[in-house]
Amino acid sequence: MNFSVPDFQDPQLAARVQHRLDQKTKPQGSLGRIEAVALQMALVQGRENPRLDAPQMVIFAGDHGIAAQGVSAFPQEVTVQMVHNMLAGGAAISVLARQHGLALTVLDCGVKEDFAPAPGLVAAKCCRGSADSTQTQALSDAECEAAIANGAAFVRDLPGNVLMLGEMGIANTSPAALLMARLTGLSIEQCAGRGTGLDPAGVAHKAAVLQRALDRHPDAKTPMAALAALGGPEIATMVGAVLQAAALRRLIVVDGFITTSAVAVAAAIEPRVLGACVFSHGSAENGHGRWLSLLGVRPLVDLGLRLGEGSGAALAWPLIKSAELILAEMASFESAQVSSAA
Amino acid sequence: MNFSVPDFQDPQLAARVQHRLDQKTKPQGSLGRIEAVALQMALVQGRENPRLDAPQMVIFAGDHGIAAQGVSAFPQEVTVQMVHNMLAGGAAISVLARQHGLALTVLDCGVKEDFAPAPGLVAAKCCRGSADSTQTQALSDAECEAAIANGAAFVRDLPGNVLMLGEMGIANTSPAALLMARLTGLSIEQCAGRGTGLDPAGVAHKAAVLQRALDRHPDAKTPMAALAALGGPEIATMVGAVLQAAALRRLIVVDGFITTSAVAVAAAIEPRVLGACVFSHGSAENGHGRWLSLLGVRPLVDLGLRLGEGSGAALAWPLIKSAELILAEMASFESAQVSSAA
Repeated sequence: MNFSVPDFQDPQLAARVQHRLDQKTKPQGSLGRIEAVALQMALVQGRENPRLDAPQMVIFAGDHGIAAQGVSAFPQEVTVQMVHNMLAGGAAISVLARQHGLALTVLDCGVKEDFAPAPGLVAAKCCRGSADSTQTQALSDAECEAAIANGAAFVRDLPGNVLMLGEMGIANTSPAALLMARLTGLSIEQCAGRGTGLDPAGVAHKAAVLQRALDRHPDAKTPMAALAALGGPEIATMVGAVLQAAALRRLIVVDGFITTSAVAVAAAIEPRVLGACVFSHGSAENGHGRWLSLLGVRPLVDLGLRLGEGSGAALAWPLIKSAELILAEMASFESAQVSSAA
Repeated sequence: MNFSVPDFQDPQLAARVQHRLDQKTKPQGSLGRIEAVALQMALVQGRENPRLDAPQMVIFAGDHGIAAQGVSAFPQEVTVQMVHNMLAGGAAISVLARQHGLALTVLDCGVKEDFAPAPGLVAAKCCRGSADSTQTQALSDAECEAAIANGAAFVRDLPGNVLMLGEMGIANTSPAALLMARLTGLSIEQCAGRGTGLDPAGVAHKAAVLQRALDRHPDAKTPMAALAALGGPEIATMVGAVLQAAALRRLIVVDGFITTSAVAVAAAIEPRVLGACVFSHGSAENGHGRWLSLLGVRPLVDLGLRLGEGSGAALAWPLIKSAELILAEMASFESAQVSSAA
């Protein structure tokens, strides 16, 4: 595993882009976060006139052995059912991807059942569901490495220059919370949340289960060891996808808590990946805001979302597109013959 | 002036729409603010299946006599120049309206100069720039009434069922701040801000000028009297537009500080209008967040914007459209054969 991620810092390019933004017919800085995204996009692509091409929404799907411990409000078969719903066009992410013209692919990273071939579905299984991390490693070392390689290979073949992260996997806030606790050192109570809708007793039970998983793997301290012991198939595959996308200078649009867990693991391996990531939204899941702060990043919007699927990334997509268009299409004070500030 | 604004509260309709949202293939409430907008849209339109039709972005443009007191970072001729820039497609709002397929009209409510006829420009002048409210009423009572009638008549002729509020008028954060101070009773320091980019000394000067305007009109206490004495042509025209749009059950998308001032005056006249308003964003202008709180509303996003022009409303538009599509197009647990929560 060797990803050569560029250093996206480039003060000279940044100064040129900032100058262009400041010459647009608006008070300096008055488009706030939109201007910051435009600047970031230019740095990721390494050019003054960044353009967004063929954005790809990828749903990384997988199942989790820890679901057997009763950590989710929904039964495990919902992973398969929701993949079918996404492919049929009825899921939230289907509606939002259609609205914004995003190519939507479901990547089977490790769903328990096998799927018949279907348009929009790509098989890249590292396993048929992870093992229960309260008992053993969620993924064997070999499975974890295969998942990362699968994610990287998938991104290499993907068109366009934007990777949008989505996921589906019943119980996957559990591996995400485990990775958060292990990578940040925070208590499991600060990392575990309601997921798809647990009540307070359910959250307490989940936290107790997750503490057992942490205690079962005291030596899984490196990012890779933690990912194998505590993670899951879609998270590990996403780690490979994120590292590869950053290496290819693609903009990465991060969704909520689970996609953040993959980005955090990738950033623990190669911190430069954060420069390529737009964090689309702060979710309602306990721990997400805290984790984003620790990563030193700010989400674009806060809409109280806790759905996953890439829904927040898709909702925020037009704001990212606006940043591109503002930089590309707005007139300057000179070209529009508008007087500038006194 | 007599606008019959419906009571948008309808508990039975709300319960039916909430039930539909809860049957969609997602954890209940997991689309957060998007679900709230979907529900609001249904109540505004008075139907279970609301649809958004031909959204109209209207830039209410006007000039302000108080600009002579040095309250803006930009010279007054920029109002005219920016109208031309908007019509030529080079302004931020031009770019964003194009991105989202919003019809864009500039309504000349009272720009100092006259414009030659142009596509996308509608003349509805109540005056040629307001008077300086530190000296006399900004608008005469007759001008103010004419502006409200102009705004209402314009909306009656407008297609579609969504009114998006934008504005252009150098110095117009001053009348907006004056209206905020007068309607809320807050000090002018809590209402006046940087506008297009004043430095701290400029803000202090602006606040002192505005205090003189407030002191000049101690008896202008009713919403109408305050609007005439302290407001401006585009704000007064927008008040009529908002009242008429609410009466016609159109969704109203509010932008930043200046459009909020018009909505606040309209709501002081007829509180029901607030039910039709989606507050798109919390702006960086001092006072905006405070005013929204006092109105009891929450903006959808917070992007640090302070541009006006309707730019925040346009940026947030896709989120509102998403709410419509989620309600209209998402599958239910039953239709998609997905198991619901235990």
